[in-house]
Amino acid sequence: MNRVLDGMRVVEGSAFVAVPLAGMTLAQMGAEVIRFDRIEGGLDAGRWPLAPSGQSLFWAGLNKGKKSVAVDMRSPEGKELVTRIITAPGRDAGQFLTNLRVRGWMDYETLSQYRRDLIMVTLMGDREGRPQVDYTVNPALGIPDMTGPEGYDAPVANALPAWDLMAGNLVVSSLLAAERHRLRHGEGQEVELALKDVAAATLGHLGMIGDAVVNGHAREKSGNALYGAYGQDFTCACGGRVMVIGLTGRQWSGLVKVTGSGAEMEKLAKRAKRDLRDEGVRWELRHEITEILRPWFAARRIADFGPEFDKRGLTWSVFRTVPEAVAQDPDLSEANPMFSQLDQPGLGRFPVPGFPGDFSAKPRIKPQPAPQLGQHTEEVLGDVARLTDTEIAQLHDKGVVQSPGYTARSAA
Amino acid sequence: MNRVLDGMRVVEGSAFVAVPLAGMTLAQMGAEVIRFDRIEGGLDAGRWPLAPSGQSLFWAGLNKGKKSVAVDMRSPEGKELVTRIITAPGRDAGQFLTNLRVRGWMDYETLSQYRRDLIMVTLMGDREGRPQVDYTVNPALGIPDMTGPEGYDAPVANALPAWDLMAGNLVVSSLLAAERHRLRHGEGQEVELALKDVAAATLGHLGMIGDAVVNGHAREKSGNALYGAYGQDFTCACGGRVMVIGLTGRQWSGLVKVTGSGAEMEKLAKRAKRDLRDEGVRWELRHEITEILRPWFAARRIADFGPEFDKRGLTWSVFRTVPEAVAQDPDLSEANPMFSQLDQPGLGRFPVPGFPGDFSAKPRIKPQPAPQLGQHTEEVLGDVARLTDTEIAQLHDKGVVQSPGYTARSAA
Repeated sequence: MNRVLDGMRVVEGSAFVAVPLAGMTLAQMGAEVIRFDRIEGGLDAGRWPLAPSGQSLFWAGLNKGKKSVAVDMRSPEGKELVTRIITAPGRDAGQFLTNLRVRGWMDYETLSQYRRDLIMVTLMGDREGRPQVDYTVNPALGIPDMTGPEGYDAPVANALPAWDLMAGNLVVSSLLAAERHRLRHGEGQEVELALKDVAAATLGHLGMIGDAVVNGHAREKSGNALYGAYGQDFTCACGGRVMVIGLTGRQWSGLVKVTGSGAEMEKLAKRAKRDLRDEGVRWELRHEITEILRPWFAARRIADFGPEFDKRGLTWSVFRTVPEAVAQDPDLSEANPMFSQLDQPGLGRFPVPGFPGDFSAKPRIKPQPAPQLGQHTEEVLGDVARLTDTEIAQLHDKGVVQSPGYTARSAA
Repeated sequence: MNRVLDGMRVVEGSAFVAVPLAGMTLAQMGAEVIRFDRIEGGLDAGRWPLAPSGQSLFWAGLNKGKKSVAVDMRSPEGKELVTRIITAPGRDAGQFLTNLRVRGWMDYETLSQYRRDLIMVTLMGDREGRPQVDYTVNPALGIPDMTGPEGYDAPVANALPAWDLMAGNLVVSSLLAAERHRLRHGEGQEVELALKDVAAATLGHLGMIGDAVVNGHAREKSGNALYGAYGQDFTCACGGRVMVIGLTGRQWSGLVKVTGSGAEMEKLAKRAKRDLRDEGVRWELRHEITEILRPWFAARRIADFGPEFDKRGLTWSVFRTVPEAVAQDPDLSEANPMFSQLDQPGLGRFPVPGFPGDFSAKPRIKPQPAPQLGQHTEEVLGDVARLTDTEIAQLHDKGVVQSPGYTARSAA
């Protein structure tokens, strides 16, 4: 992480991937991010994968570096408290992210009465506020239909919640853009966006909506081929599998050269009366190209050709499982300055990533672990909501808020 | 799009998905974004999908609302011109995005000599600057290994360039964070990030690195199941396919209730001696749950149960192809204020998306189409690089720059 957003304070009421990721991204750029949750934990408190202790590795991953407040939001005192935290004064405070979409006390109309220049970014399921998740948006828009082995007769969903990830990042951009506007014009605002709209817009940006309308056909499943040019996976003599790319002219000629397949590619081009320097022709002739290249890879071990591929600057990689990648790839270890090994109580010791960007004016610092639920309740009640020690004690005693340490003291 | 970033000027030297998407996202929030390209067009000028005219729907999709300058960067005059455009004065200018990573004249060290407070964000393949694309990063980190039908014996890649999309969004966040820092402290900076690091960090954020290290196992392929709780696809009597979600307790109980499967779920729980209110138990017993639910869906048409699912607020969707989604889903049409039908020369007429976020202080405006290559060469040379008409004419005559209109005039 780093300190480029030093001084900014953001409050987050969230669950699952997108908005927690947004808050964490801001925290990893140095903002103070306060996530509030129900006393029993948010809807994502037990999301898989879990550590052997039963604690959620997922939750810990998406809430790194935040402050955690546990509060009973069904009580009037809890509602008042959350309102005070969200709307607390401070030039760089008054910024709220949520996907909870609570009408009434926690909506923009109400909250902005307590702080006129509030910035609030709300992520919804669809634009009407109906529930949608990554797993439903994706099939509705057709990505699983074009994913999977050639000829396979059913849709194949991503293992990666790509739309959630994108939506979370757009929440960050929206917040930073709205804060820029506030700094220049003194004006807060509400930003609403929907997960489904994020996916729908992206389809348009990638040309898929135009393709559907003007060409009228559904993109076929093409296994692991790179769409629209050449890129393919090959099994090698060692049993490993590689992905090789011939997207640009330079990548393509490098691949042909290193595999010594120039003469055969020329024969293919002549036979088909097509020019393989055209990326679209490489796509259309991908099966024929693959047949030419397959024996080359089948006869060689990755260890034999890999160094040569790197030396020539080819674009390629090896297929791995996640555990193999973690064990073998230095980019997933502390050799990569983005990662630090952290010891995390209840989770274990493993490499934890910071923000991917490296800012020259704000050097990388070690990523912070996720808080325990309610770890910062007392601190935030005092420093942000400006309650006295007596008030804080009363709220704990009434069960309106919870702090792990405080509970222990009360029980003692 | 909208005008929340009104006044900001960003220069972009890019190709393919991530950095073009970053620039376009800024343009769709109202920034002036100037993309420069070689006179023959960038590496992505012909990227598929194509319109029947042969023009790239992909390029048009990722460059909406930008200004285009075509310049010969091999010539000293071209280099000087690009330098002037990037480093032109203006409080909200001096911001440069690139994935071209040209050493020497176009690196941060050189450019920042012309403008001390330059902000430059560079996206690389991996952190060492080696070439990597979405199609190589993804297999290297293990996502295709966990994607695909249960028991399928090969990795299955996404059809969606999810890492590119994410990286592009992080370029936006990095730029906005660096600009915030500059506005407060007067200091520019260089930000470097790598596509592979974006993917590696995300694996960590989602708990997958922790899972690999502390649990040691590779996540199995699970078809279209929602990982870690319950969510599954079902074929219906009408031949359609739906995705239904039981991630939260509320979603799960709603699904059980509407399908009348409560008694059978109870029997299952008793037999297995597990509590289905625990999301992880639903994951572990997902095959048994699916067997209970399958006949219900197989006996019903989507049209029969869909309205009831909506009425009860269930989280579900229908599987579609992209053309089906475009034809059937109002969220992909002008019924959604994010979309406008645009007539685009050489491409056709179809719904074009703006920025997903709706900013209350800066209402949506119609998205702008992509420029023609070089469409704004004259304008930018005059207004930004501050060249005289004579200088602009000389550069055209020497072939250092190109404008579609200008060429026509010279030929006349």
